[in-house]
Amino acid sequence: MSTMAESTNMRLRLPLLCIILEVILIILFGALVEYNDDTHAKMWNANKSHSATRDDYENEFYYRYPSFQDVHVMIFVGFGFLMTFLQRYGFSSVGFNFLIAAFSLQWATLMQGFVHGMHHGKIHVGVTSMINADFCTGSVLISFGAVLGKTSPVQLLVMAIFEVTLFAVNEFILLSMLGANDAGGSMTIHTFGAYFGLMVTRVLYRPNLDKSKHRNSSVYHSDLFAMIGTIYLWMFWPSFNSAITNYGDPQHRTALNTYYSLAACTLATFAFSALVNPEGKLDMVHIQNAALAGGVAVGTAGEMMLTPFGSMIVGFLAGTISVLGYKYLTPVLESKLKIQDTCGIHNLHGMPGVLGAVVGAVTSALASPGVYGHGLQRVFADAETGKWNPQSRGGFQAISLAVTLGMALFGGLVTGFILKLPIYGAPPDTHCFEDGLYWEEEGHELNEVATPNEMEKLNS
Amino acid sequence: MSTMAESTNMRLRLPLLCIILEVILIILFGALVEYNDDTHAKMWNANKSHSATRDDYENEFYYRYPSFQDVHVMIFVGFGFLMTFLQRYGFSSVGFNFLIAAFSLQWATLMQGFVHGMHHGKIHVGVTSMINADFCTGSVLISFGAVLGKTSPVQLLVMAIFEVTLFAVNEFILLSMLGANDAGGSMTIHTFGAYFGLMVTRVLYRPNLDKSKHRNSSVYHSDLFAMIGTIYLWMFWPSFNSAITNYGDPQHRTALNTYYSLAACTLATFAFSALVNPEGKLDMVHIQNAALAGGVAVGTAGEMMLTPFGSMIVGFLAGTISVLGYKYLTPVLESKLKIQDTCGIHNLHGMPGVLGAVVGAVTSALASPGVYGHGLQRVFADAETGKWNPQSRGGFQAISLAVTLGMALFGGLVTGFILKLPIYGAPPDTHCFEDGLYWEEEGHELNEVATPNEMEKLNS
Amino acid sequence: MSTMAESTNMRLRLPLLCIILEVILIILFGALVEYNDDTHAKMWNANKSHSATRDDYENEFYYRYPSFQDVHVMIFVGFGFLMTFLQRYGFSSVGFNFLIAAFSLQWATLMQGFVHGMHHGKIHVGVTSMINADFCTGSVLISFGAVLGKTSPVQLLVMAIFEVTLFAVNEFILLSMLGANDAGGSMTIHTFGAYFGLMVTRVLYRPNLDKSKHRNSSVYHSDLFAMIGTIYLWMFWPSFNSAITNYGDPQHRTALNTYYSLAACTLATFAFSALVNPEGKLDMVHIQNAALAGGVAVGTAGEMMLTPFGSMIVGFLAGTISVLGYKYLTPVLESKLKIQDTCGIHNLHGMPGVLGAVVGAVTSALASPGVYGHGLQRVFADAETGKWNPQSRGGFQAISLAVTLGMALFGGLVTGFILKLPIYGAPPDTHCFEDGLYWEEEGHELNEVATPNEMEKLNS
Repeated sequence: MSTMAESTNMRLRLPLLCIILEVILIILFGALVEYNDDTHAKMWNANKSHSATRDDYENEFYYRYPSFQDVHVMIFVGFGFLMTFLQRYGFSSVGFNFLIAAFSLQWATLMQGFVHGMHHGKIHVGVTSMINADFCTGSVLISFGAVLGKTSPVQLLVMAIFEVTLFAVNEFILLSMLGANDAGGSMTIHTFGAYFGLMVTRVLYRPNLDKSKHRNSSVYHSDLFAMIGTIYLWMFWPSFNSAITNYGDPQHRTALNTYYSLAACTLATFAFSALVNPEGKLDMVHIQNAALAGGVAVGTAGEMMLTPFGSMIVGFLAGTISVLGYKYLTPVLESKLKIQDTCGIHNLHGMPGVLGAVVGAVTSALASPGVYGHGLQRVFADAETGKWNPQSRGGFQAISLAVTLGMALFGGLVTGFILKLPIYGAPPDTHCFEDGLYWEEEGHELNEVATPNEMEKLNS
Repeated sequence: MSTMAESTNMRLRLPLLCIILEVILIILFGALVEYNDDTHAKMWNANKSHSATRDDYENEFYYRYPSFQDVHVMIFVGFGFLMTFLQRYGFSSVGFNFLIAAFSLQWATLMQGFVHGMHHGKIHVGVTSMINADFCTGSVLISFGAVLGKTSPVQLLVMAIFEVTLFAVNEFILLSMLGANDAGGSMTIHTFGAYFGLMVTRVLYRPNLDKSKHRNSSVYHSDLFAMIGTIYLWMFWPSFNSAITNYGDPQHRTALNTYYSLAACTLATFAFSALVNPEGKLDMVHIQNAALAGGVAVGTAGEMMLTPFGSMIVGFLAGTISVLGYKYLTPVLESKLKIQDTCGIHNLHGMPGVLGAVVGAVTSALASPGVYGHGLQRVFADAETGKWNPQSRGGFQAISLAVTLGMALFGGLVTGFILKLPIYGAPPDTHCFEDGLYWEEEGHELNEVATPNEMEKLNS
Repeated sequence: MSTMAESTNMRLRLPLLCIILEVILIILFGALVEYNDDTHAKMWNANKSHSATRDDYENEFYYRYPSFQDVHVMIFVGFGFLMTFLQRYGFSSVGFNFLIAAFSLQWATLMQGFVHGMHHGKIHVGVTSMINADFCTGSVLISFGAVLGKTSPVQLLVMAIFEVTLFAVNEFILLSMLGANDAGGSMTIHTFGAYFGLMVTRVLYRPNLDKSKHRNSSVYHSDLFAMIGTIYLWMFWPSFNSAITNYGDPQHRTALNTYYSLAACTLATFAFSALVNPEGKLDMVHIQNAALAGGVAVGTAGEMMLTPFGSMIVGFLAGTISVLGYKYLTPVLESKLKIQDTCGIHNLHGMPGVLGAVVGAVTSALASPGVYGHGLQRVFADAETGKWNPQSRGGFQAISLAVTLGMALFGGLVTGFILKLPIYGAPPDTHCFEDGLYWEEEGHELNEVATPNEMEKLNS
């Protein structure tokens, strides 16, 4: 026991890494980050035109900040509590989610700033950069779901360093080089985060994980805590997908489409959850996760003229494949491909993300001035050039998906091998899914937790 | 046991109903639903005047969407978690709430669209229709509270089909035919939902429900989960009541009035909860529910010049009658009128809803141009005609209450008898208030749950 | 037992106090409170200029209400659930928080209205007064954290009466007489609330509190409930600090600075929490509390040109001193100074509040037209006069801190002695941190709770 306790001891590793990272962040922020025009006391006023009173109301703060706060809730409460479903991993789920999100949003501000264009050598920040940083953080938290319970906080921070960096590069290729549409991140966030995480967990494969099998499940109240995460993700997904679209009808339409997609997805989830169970009983795992797939699947096409009708079809499909994935695919991935996917991110983010990318490509290819009118160029930036070619647009969307998959799998592979080094204090196979390794618990001894007697009590 | 398990087996019933309903919804949406001008790429731009930049900021999205999200939280987190107070019914409370809300908001979009006027044969959707659909959903969830623990998800969906339809008709009669004011839905949402649900539960009366009595109560942590629901409902009620008022001072005033009403209601709730207990102890049931009655009771008059003073009086009264209702009326309703009202919706929505309707009628009858100035026609639509007659306005408000009560009781009666058919897999009297019937639970066998030994453990 | 039960019996005390207070509030609101121009049907329209359609959009509701709702969530969910960490005090934490907040926001509306200037003998209310009342309520809830588990609800209401009153006076001295900047309340809210509460708990010192020691700790799920509070406070703190700044760049900048300060603070918290533990294990107490210190510490300087760089340094420092305070200072305060600080408010609000005041003074003293341009007078009101003297501004900020500390300590002293009268039904030393005294609990007898056997079960 003492050996194990030592090997997972965070006393030096975690403080050292956190402090070094934060000091680097502070130095880089000091050297490179500036307020943008809407947050700068001098610039905001310098740019103001005649009518002073009105202008303050035009600050982008008033049109983006409510969306930002909804996204922020999804990142910290949504992802954090969704992962509390494990019976003895609630502290780590919410806590490590908190830690790596707080790090990632700072690091993402820098990486996205570097890649997407600096202003005279400076990165400009404001509410839009805050949303984008939270988006990037989301993809790290998706990957966290695959390795949940099997990694130390130091591993997670190291993973975040690499994933955020690669996310920014991939996002740049898609949005700036390929001119792709992906406002809600079906590709950049969900597909990327899912396949990155799946590759990491593949490389970190643990043949003896069944030694912790008794802890890799939920108890009654842990499932209720997880539902807090689910419901918040579900409710605010319309805000997520619409947070950085163009103002006006695109933002409004994105929220509406997402709302309908999620509603249809929820009915599909309940239907197929009961259908795949011999006794017709619903499974909390499906409700907690698959009901959200509808939001993922309209992450690309949501801002387009997908119509409520189209959104509902996409949502219904997403919920269906997600439940079927949990039931039939996840066990196969584990036994055949050695992919141990704790939260089933392949079903919630992977397949629905790819579906979303395909839907986006098709919807792009079908876009026309007849449907969009003058609004076309507000959705498809290259329509402004006058050389509007919806088929090639659809093609670029498809290429974007391929690029994302490649970047994610390659990045996950490299990162996985880096995380495999035996220096991070990863938990032993016998003590995965266990808060006691990294958290001080009153009245709880580590070895107590794993006993059947304890298990019995936990289930009450 | 096997017979019971079969009779409540959802394997075919629930998937079949969900899939059929969603397919019908999708077909009807495809045929009938269109983006409105604020969400349509072509229409939004077509309607724009000269100054393009400003116009995007004028999209109704920016003035309604924050309210929508608050309402959305109330529907899914507020109602969902409020009902988790039962010790073994948390999955069903949050889960079925989720299912029937996701269905109802789609169905409500169609029903409200049909009834309130189509545009060239099409239903136009946008953020306002989203709010209205959520409102209609709220009334279904109120009724759910009365039958909580005693119905299968199939029954709940069938109830929602009928209730949403009748809600739309009643709403049309009140708002369009009688010209009633009811922005926060004291009548259309609360009174309607409450008396509809009470009638349904009356028809579904179970003489042997005491066989499940030991499960019809809370445990320590289930009461804390319920408080999540309570607090969210309480905090966002100002957004609920103001979500669809006219822009400007009416919306602002409604939020303010509701805020004061709820604050006063909370003090009344604590006061009377302690007063009616022999040992002066507070009862979580009162705090969880009665503290919200102040929001219900200003649902009609909130947009009027009720003043903070008036709002506080109404809130104080609402909290008082609600606590007294829980203590003295609910047991009588059950023993004498055979109304088994699990959540006590009569105390939270029924009586406070009627109080709100009466307050609305009186406040309407007292309205005058002297108090409202040019703002009169922004609160009372028929003041625009110039033939302003506050007394007849008050009269129409009173008639609206009577119509609502009649529609609700009649609708509940018919729906109750439909739900009585033995085809929906309703739980037997011995297994009400029990998640195990409809949910897969790890480490839990159905028959284990009901034993006193299990009860003992649950209470810890 | 019967004597104790009697002495803490709330049956007459609590209803009497609640009803008397609410009646007084209603009478005073009736006599003194009026809608302000943005909420008044007559005034809003009277003040409107030509273009009617636009004007409704300019109602302050649309620019303040989303911030208000975020603040409201912090007050009721944030503070309420943060304090549920105690194993047997969850009902009281959320419930008494609810009660005293509902009272305080009404009382604060009056007190702040009196002190900050009436309009022709009337107090004008609207969304800004709602935010200010919630702010004042926040300081009462901070003080509640110090005495948590050791006071009856009657004591808490009496404390709120005095604290709100003194808060309004102190706020007036700082903001109106000394012209201090303190938009996020490092001084007015956090420093004031913390030192007031610490003095109250000092006066109420219980030498035999160790008789309730076994209940003064958390269990697994109570810590998860507390994390709900923590995360909501953390996410919405940018809204809190920016809620009443000037429109435009100051509001935008404040939110941004707070966001970065909190992110840096979180990394510091995790680092030092692991560092101060012999086994390198994280402590939930630190994560739940110290991670928030970054929001407190930019409460004054957040609206200034602190830069993200500066905000991160401040946040990192705040998290560091907060963790060290929990580890090393709190035990000393208890053993040497007899300050029993249940939630450790000295570490979360006290020291970070003072740090925030100092940072604010320094940042003020460094402000210049070169950095702020024409924006200077939008942050520093007295810059409008033309006699801008940053050094004296910094000096006034420092004086403001001294005044706040004096007011808080003096007010806490007097209030503490008032609360010491043996008439409020305070819990005996043997039954602190125990819901059973004031709450009806199904299946729980009071004396059962304190047994070691029960403790054992609670820990499962």
